[in-house]
Amino acid sequence: MAAGGNHIRVGILGCAEIARKVARAISLAPNATLSAVGSRTVEKAKRFAAENGFPETVKIYGSYEAVLDDPEVDAVYVPLPTSLHLRWAVEAAEKKKHVLLEKPTALHVGELERILQACDSNGVQFMDGTMWMHHPRTHKMREMLSNPSLFGQIKSVHSIFSFSGGSDFLENDIRVKPDLDGLGALGDVGWYCIRSILWAVDYELPKTVTALRVPVLNKSGVILSCGSSLLWEDGKVATFQCSFLANLVMDVTVVGTKGTLHLNDFVIPFGETSASFTFATESGFTELVTGWKPLPSEHILATDLPQEALMVKEFATLVGGIRDSALKPDEEMAYN
Amino acid sequence: MAAGGNHIRVGILGCAEIARKVARAISLAPNATLSAVGSRTVEKAKRFAAENGFPETVKIYGSYEAVLDDPEVDAVYVPLPTSLHLRWAVEAAEKKKHVLLEKPTALHVGELERILQACDSNGVQFMDGTMWMHHPRTHKMREMLSNPSLFGQIKSVHSIFSFSGGSDFLENDIRVKPDLDGLGALGDVGWYCIRSILWAVDYELPKTVTALRVPVLNKSGVILSCGSSLLWEDGKVATFQCSFLANLVMDVTVVGTKGTLHLNDFVIPFGETSASFTFATESGFTELVTGWKPLPSEHILATDLPQEALMVKEFATLVGGIRDSALKPDEEMAYN
Repeated sequence: MAAGGNHIRVGILGCAEIARKVARAISLAPNATLSAVGSRTVEKAKRFAAENGFPETVKIYGSYEAVLDDPEVDAVYVPLPTSLHLRWAVEAAEKKKHVLLEKPTALHVGELERILQACDSNGVQFMDGTMWMHHPRTHKMREMLSNPSLFGQIKSVHSIFSFSGGSDFLENDIRVKPDLDGLGALGDVGWYCIRSILWAVDYELPKTVTALRVPVLNKSGVILSCGSSLLWEDGKVATFQCSFLANLVMDVTVVGTKGTLHLNDFVIPFGETSASFTFATESGFTELVTGWKPLPSEHILATDLPQEALMVKEFATLVGGIRDSALKPDEEMAYN
Repeated sequence: MAAGGNHIRVGILGCAEIARKVARAISLAPNATLSAVGSRTVEKAKRFAAENGFPETVKIYGSYEAVLDDPEVDAVYVPLPTSLHLRWAVEAAEKKKHVLLEKPTALHVGELERILQACDSNGVQFMDGTMWMHHPRTHKMREMLSNPSLFGQIKSVHSIFSFSGGSDFLENDIRVKPDLDGLGALGDVGWYCIRSILWAVDYELPKTVTALRVPVLNKSGVILSCGSSLLWEDGKVATFQCSFLANLVMDVTVVGTKGTLHLNDFVIPFGETSASFTFATESGFTELVTGWKPLPSEHILATDLPQEALMVKEFATLVGGIRDSALKPDEEMAYN
C-alpha cells in the first residue's frame, strides 16, 4: 500500500458511510493513495480507520482543518452533509487542496458557483462524486446515443431513482434533516435522475422544469418523494421520479427518433465486474404485428476497476497533471 | 376450418390492417369461427378475404349492414375508425350482435356510455380489443402486484408507448385525421399507456390528470405526441408518454413499497410463443454498496395461443354463455 512517487495523496473529511466505499476506491486506483482522514474527534476517525482496515500510513486527525493543513495531502474527498459543502469545499480550495465533492454538491446554484469560483481562483481541480459517470458503460452509451444512424434525434428521457428508506432512515438520516441535507430525496436520489437527463441531452439546459403535483414532505418540510417534467426548446421532454418511500429502482430510458436505450441500474450497476444496457435501433414488428423485429440487443461492458475507483483514477490524473505538469484544471469536468 | 357446433360465429366490419391479425386469431381460437366480412364495397371485401386466405365458408358482403343482418353471425369485431364506433357498435348491439370493439373504443366517455348502454339493453357482450389484457403474462403480473409480501403498496406507475410513424403514416394514416381517429397518438398508443396505469392500480380512478407541457400536434390539431401525470387520493402517482414520433417503445414500470415490475414489450410481446417480465422484491445492496442484492428476477410465461387468440377465446366463451346457457353479459369485462 506504499504510495508510488507520483501518487495523488487524498485526505477524507468526515466518516460518512459512503466514505467507506470511496476509501476502498482510493486504494484501488493505481494513481492515488489514501493519506489522511479527519473527523470531529480523533476517536471517531481512529475507529473509522480501524473498521475499514486503513493502513498505518494513513494519518488520523481530530478535525477537518488538520487534513487541510497537512502539506502531504494533495486533494480531499468531501462526503460531509450538503449544508457543510460551501464552507469546507471553499476552505479546501483556499488551502490549495483539489476537491472531490460528494453530491449534491450544494444546496443551490449560488453556493455551487462560489465553490467553483474558489477552485478556479486557487487553481485546483473540482469534481463531483457522481460515480456512474466514470463507468465504461456510460461512455459506451454516450457513443451510441451520439450516433445518428443508431439513435436519431433524442425525443424523451425518463429517469427513476427510489429506495425504501425504512423507519430508522426516515427518522434519523441526515438526508431527511432540513439543516443537514435539506434537499431530501431531490438532492439525493433526484440528483442522479437530473444528472442522467442532462447527460442524455448532452447538458443542454431545459426551457422549463415543472414539478409534478403534490410532492411528499416530512414534518420538517424535507422532500421524501417528488417528480418533475422538463421541456426543451426543440420539443424534447423528460420526466423523473425520485423517492425514499419505494423499492430500489434506478431506471434510465432514452428514446430517440430511431433508437432506444434502457438500463435499470444506472447509479450502482447490479454487479461490480460488468454492467449492461439494452439498445434498440429502428425497432419494428413482424409481418402480422405479432412480435418485434429487430429485437433490442444487450450490451455488456466489463470493468477492470469498480466505477468509484475509475472516478478516483480520473480525478487523480487531472490533479497529477496540475501538480506535476503545470496543466490547468479541467473545467468541463467541473461543470458537467 | 368447419365450425364446431357451438362455435361463436364472428363477422368483421371493415378491412383494417389490424383485422388481418384478428381474423387469424378468430381461426386459432378453439371456440370461434370467422363467418363473414363486410366492407364498403364487395370488391374490397373479396380482395381482403383472398389476401388473407379466408376459407370459402366466410361470407363476403359489400356493406357493414349486411353483416349485422346475417342471422348466422353471433358477434362482430369492429376495427373501424374511432369516429364510426358509436354508430356501428350501437347498431350491432341493436341487431343483437355481441361487440368486440377495437380501441380506442370511443372519442369520449359520453359516446362509450351510449355504446355500453346499447349493449346492456340488448343483452349482448361488450369487449374492447386490448389484446395484452388476455396474455397469461398479464395475469401473472397482476397476481404478483396483488401480493403484499412481494410488492407492498403501489407508489408509482410509468408507461411509455411510442413508434416512429414515418412520413407516409404522418400524412395519410387514419390516426392523424381529425375526422377519423381524432384522438391521434393519445387515442392510439396513449390508450395502452392509460390502460396499463389503470390496470396497475386495479382501476381506481385518479384524483387529477395533468397534461405535461406542450403536446406536439399536426396541422389539423391532432396529437402526435404528448405526456401526462396522474395523482391519486392516497399519493400514488403515474406518468405516461405516448408518441408517433419516436422509436418503438412499450414500457411499463410499476413501483411499490417493496417491489418493482418492469417490462418493455407490454402491448406486443417480443415473441409470440412466450413473454417475460422482470420483478424485484426488497431490492437492496451488497455490503459496500457496490452491487445489488437480491437481483431482480426474470419470469417467463409460455403461451399456447397468441394473445389475440386468447382474447377471442375469452370473448367467445362469454358470448357462448349468453347464447347457449342464458348467462348475462359480463359487466366487469365491459367496464375494465
